[in-house]
Amino acid sequence: MAEPLVADLGPDPLFRKVAAELVGTAALVAVVVGSGIQATELTRDVGLQLLANSTATVFGLGVLILLLGPVSGAHFNPVVTLADWWTRRGRQNHLLAREVAAYLIAQTAGAIGGAVLADAMFGKALVQWSSHDRSAGHLLIGEVVATAGLVLLIFGLAKKDQLRFAPVAVASYIGAAYWFTSSTSFANPAVAIGRTFTDTFAGIKPSSLPGFIGMELIGGIVGLALVALVFGRDRDTRA
Amino acid sequence: MAEPLVADLGPDPLFRKVAAELVGTAALVAVVVGSGIQATELTRDVGLQLLANSTATVFGLGVLILLLGPVSGAHFNPVVTLADWWTRRGRQNHLLAREVAAYLIAQTAGAIGGAVLADAMFGKALVQWSSHDRSAGHLLIGEVVATAGLVLLIFGLAKKDQLRFAPVAVASYIGAAYWFTSSTSFANPAVAIGRTFTDTFAGIKPSSLPGFIGMELIGGIVGLALVALVFGRDRDTRA
Amino acid sequence: MAEPLVADLGPDPLFRKVAAELVGTAALVAVVVGSGIQATELTRDVGLQLLANSTATVFGLGVLILLLGPVSGAHFNPVVTLADWWTRRGRQNHLLAREVAAYLIAQTAGAIGGAVLADAMFGKALVQWSSHDRSAGHLLIGEVVATAGLVLLIFGLAKKDQLRFAPVAVASYIGAAYWFTSSTSFANPAVAIGRTFTDTFAGIKPSSLPGFIGMELIGGIVGLALVALVFGRDRDTRA
Amino acid sequence: MAEPLVADLGPDPLFRKVAAELVGTAALVAVVVGSGIQATELTRDVGLQLLANSTATVFGLGVLILLLGPVSGAHFNPVVTLADWWTRRGRQNHLLAREVAAYLIAQTAGAIGGAVLADAMFGKALVQWSSHDRSAGHLLIGEVVATAGLVLLIFGLAKKDQLRFAPVAVASYIGAAYWFTSSTSFANPAVAIGRTFTDTFAGIKPSSLPGFIGMELIGGIVGLALVALVFGRDRDTRA
Repeated sequence: MAEPLVADLGPDPLFRKVAAELVGTAALVAVVVGSGIQATELTRDVGLQLLANSTATVFGLGVLILLLGPVSGAHFNPVVTLADWWTRRGRQNHLLAREVAAYLIAQTAGAIGGAVLADAMFGKALVQWSSHDRSAGHLLIGEVVATAGLVLLIFGLAKKDQLRFAPVAVASYIGAAYWFTSSTSFANPAVAIGRTFTDTFAGIKPSSLPGFIGMELIGGIVGLALVALVFGRDRDTRA
Repeated sequence: MAEPLVADLGPDPLFRKVAAELVGTAALVAVVVGSGIQATELTRDVGLQLLANSTATVFGLGVLILLLGPVSGAHFNPVVTLADWWTRRGRQNHLLAREVAAYLIAQTAGAIGGAVLADAMFGKALVQWSSHDRSAGHLLIGEVVATAGLVLLIFGLAKKDQLRFAPVAVASYIGAAYWFTSSTSFANPAVAIGRTFTDTFAGIKPSSLPGFIGMELIGGIVGLALVALVFGRDRDTRA
Repeated sequence: MAEPLVADLGPDPLFRKVAAELVGTAALVAVVVGSGIQATELTRDVGLQLLANSTATVFGLGVLILLLGPVSGAHFNPVVTLADWWTRRGRQNHLLAREVAAYLIAQTAGAIGGAVLADAMFGKALVQWSSHDRSAGHLLIGEVVATAGLVLLIFGLAKKDQLRFAPVAVASYIGAAYWFTSSTSFANPAVAIGRTFTDTFAGIKPSSLPGFIGMELIGGIVGLALVALVFGRDRDTRA
Repeated sequence: MAEPLVADLGPDPLFRKVAAELVGTAALVAVVVGSGIQATELTRDVGLQLLANSTATVFGLGVLILLLGPVSGAHFNPVVTLADWWTRRGRQNHLLAREVAAYLIAQTAGAIGGAVLADAMFGKALVQWSSHDRSAGHLLIGEVVATAGLVLLIFGLAKKDQLRFAPVAVASYIGAAYWFTSSTSFANPAVAIGRTFTDTFAGIKPSSLPGFIGMELIGGIVGLALVALVFGRDRDTRA
C-alpha cells in the first residue's frame, strides 16, 4: 500500500480505538492545562510560563502519539479525523460515518475530562468557565496557520510513507506553533472546548470558542490544499 | 514472543542486574537532587528552577534507561518491578520472588546513595532529613495520576512491541509529568525514600512519605487497569 | 551510489520541488520571526527571548526538513543550493542552471512571504523595514563561522551516507549556532532578505544585509574546504 | 565482532582522523565558550545563563559526534582516547601509541583554537587567562562523578553494541551533567585547558586546572571500574 493510513493502523476493535482517543485526548488536555497552572504558580515571567507550558506539551504529546498511535491512529483532534475521512473517502479502508462520530464524541468528552482532572490535581474548582478572551482578529489568522500547518504535516508525512515519525514530528510542530502563531496554536476543536472548562493559564473564554473552531476548520481545508500542491493528489492510482 | 518483557531483557546474571538497578537508581536520584541544588543556587525564579530540574532529569533518565535497559530492564522503580511481576505471573519467564526482592532492595539502597552523593558534590551535609512538606490532598491526586501514566506508558509500549522506544518515551513522560502533575511526579517509592535524605529543592519530608508511596501503589493499579482497557489483556494466548 | 544527494531526493517534478522550497522557506521565516515577536511580547529578559526563539526554530526547522526533504531536498537556503550545485557539477545527476535559479527565486520569495505572514499573525504592519543594525565586525566573523558549520554538517553527512539524520542534525546545529555565534546564525541569504521586511526581534536592517550575505557566501566556501579536509574529495571515483 | 569499537570506526587515514579530532574539539569548545558569552550578554539570571549554555552544548555536541564519529570516533577528549587505548590494549585493532599521541595533541590544540575563535566572534581579547576560580573541594568530587559517568556511558554502550546511539546519548548525558554535578561537568582535560584561555562565563582559572585534570583521570578509572562491575569484563573471549 503506497499511502500509509492515519487511522486504523492497528487491528483493535472500535471500542479500544475510542477508548484510546478518549484517554489520549484527556491526557493531552491535562498536560496542557496542568502545566499551565504549575507554571503560573511558580513564576511571574509570562515568557517562562509559556516555555514551560510548551515544553511539557511537546513531551506529553509525543509520548501519547507513540503509545496510542498503533491503537487508534492517535488523532485526538476532530480536524484530523475529518481530514482523514475526507482524504480516504471512497476507498476500501475509509473511515465509516459511525467511526467518525465515535471519534469526535470521545475526543470532546476526553478533552473536557482532562481539563477537570487538571483542575482537580491542582486543587482548583473542577469546572469554572475560562475568562481568557481570545477574540482578537490576528489571533484568528494565527489559528488558521496553526491548523493548516498541522494538517500539512500529518498528511504530507503520510504521502511520503513517513508516518512512523509522527510522534516526534507532530510534537515538535506544536512546540514551534506555541510560539510562532499568535494564538499559541490550539489547532484542535475538541481541545478548545475542553479548555473553556478551566479558568487558568491555558483556558479560553466560551465566547471566543466559535471563532477558534471556525478558523480551525478553515485551516484544515487550507492544509489539505497545501498537501495537494506540494505532494500531489494521487487519488486515481490508489482508490 | 508476542509481548516484549520489561525485565530480563539481557542474559546477564542476577548480580549484574542488581548492580545495574543500584547504580541506575543512584544516578537517577543524584540527577534529580543535584540539578535541584544547582538550580536553586543559580536563580531565584522557582519556575526556572523546575525547568532546569526537569530538563536535567529528562536527559539523565533517558540515558540511564538506554544504557542499563539491556542489563536489568532499567526499572529503577519498585512500582515497575511489581507491575512487571504481576503482569507476567504464572508465565514461563516470570520474575521470581527473590529477583523482585533483590530489585526492590537495590533500588532503595541506590536511591539513598544517590541523594547522599548529590549532597556530597555540592558540599551539603551528607544526610539531612528534608523539611519539604508535600502532604496537601491535591498533591496526592497528582501522584496517583503520575504513576498511573507511567505504568500505562511502559506496559502499553510493551503490548505493542515498542519497548525499544522506552528511553526517550519514559524520559519525555517524566519531563511532562514534572509540570502537569501537581506533585511534580515522583511516581517512584524508592526515589521518594531517597529524597527524604536531603533537605534541598527536590526533598520530601519523611512525614509526607507514606502518603506518596500509598498513592504510587494505587496509581500503579490504575495504570494496569488502563492498560487492560486500551490494550486488552491477552493473557490466555501467551501464557 | 556512494554519495547521497542533497537535492533530487524525490521523483517529484520541478514545480513541486519549487513549491516545497517556497512553502518551506516561508514557514521557516514565519517560525523565526513569529516566535521572536511572541517572545518579546511575553518577557523582558532578552536571554529568555532568544531561548524561546531558538527553541521554536529548532522544532520548526527539523519538522520542515523531515516533511519536505523527500520532495525538494529541503534546502531553504541559497548557500546550500549553490554548494550542492558546485559539489555535483559535471556529474550525471547534477543540478541544472534553471533548477538552481528556480530554487533561489522560490527561497527568496518564500522568505519574504514568511516575514509578512508572521507580521500578519501578530497584528503588525505587514511590511516595515527592520531597524535592527547588525553591522559590527565581530558579527561578520560569527556569520562566516555559522555558515561554514552548516555546510560542513550537511555535506559531511552526505559523504558518510548519513543524510537521513539531516532533520534532527541541521535543526540541532541551528539550535547551537543561535547561541555560540555572535550573529545568532542567519547563515542563509534568502532568510536574511526576508528578515529585513519586519521591524521585530528577528529583523535585520537593510544596510546590514550586504555584509551578512557576503559573509555567508564566504562561509559556504570555508565549509566546503573543511569538508574536503576532513572527509576527502573523492571526486574521481564517483563522477 | 561482539564489541563495537570507539575509535577506528571508519577507514579514513590517520591524518583525517586527527583533522576530525582537531576540528571537532575546536567546535565543541567554541560552542561551550561562545554560548556562555552570548548568555551572559543577554541575561543577568545565572540560572538562565547555564540553561542556555547547556542547551547549546547538548545540540552542538550531539551534532559533532554524529558528523565526525564515522571518521575519528569523535573522542574530542583525552580521557576517552586513553580509556579506549586501555580497553583494547593487546587486541588486534588496538590504538597505537602514535595514534594516541596524535589524538591528544589534536584535541588540546583544537580546544585552545576553539576558545580563541569564540573570543574572536564576540569581539573579546583573543587570549586572556580566565579568572574563574574552580578549586573548591566539592567541585572536585563533582568532576570525578562527571567523568566516571561519561566513561561508564560510552564504554557501557559499546559493551551492548549500542554505540550508534552515542550522539544523542553522550549529548544528553552532558546536558544532565551540566546541572547535576557541582563542577558543571568539564569531564575533559583538553577542553579544560582550552577554557583557561578565555576570561568569560565558561572559563577556568589556570590554577584550578591541575585539580580538574587530576579528578578527570581518576573519574576515568572509576568509570572503567563501573563498566566492569555492571557489564562484565569479557576480555578473554574477544582478544
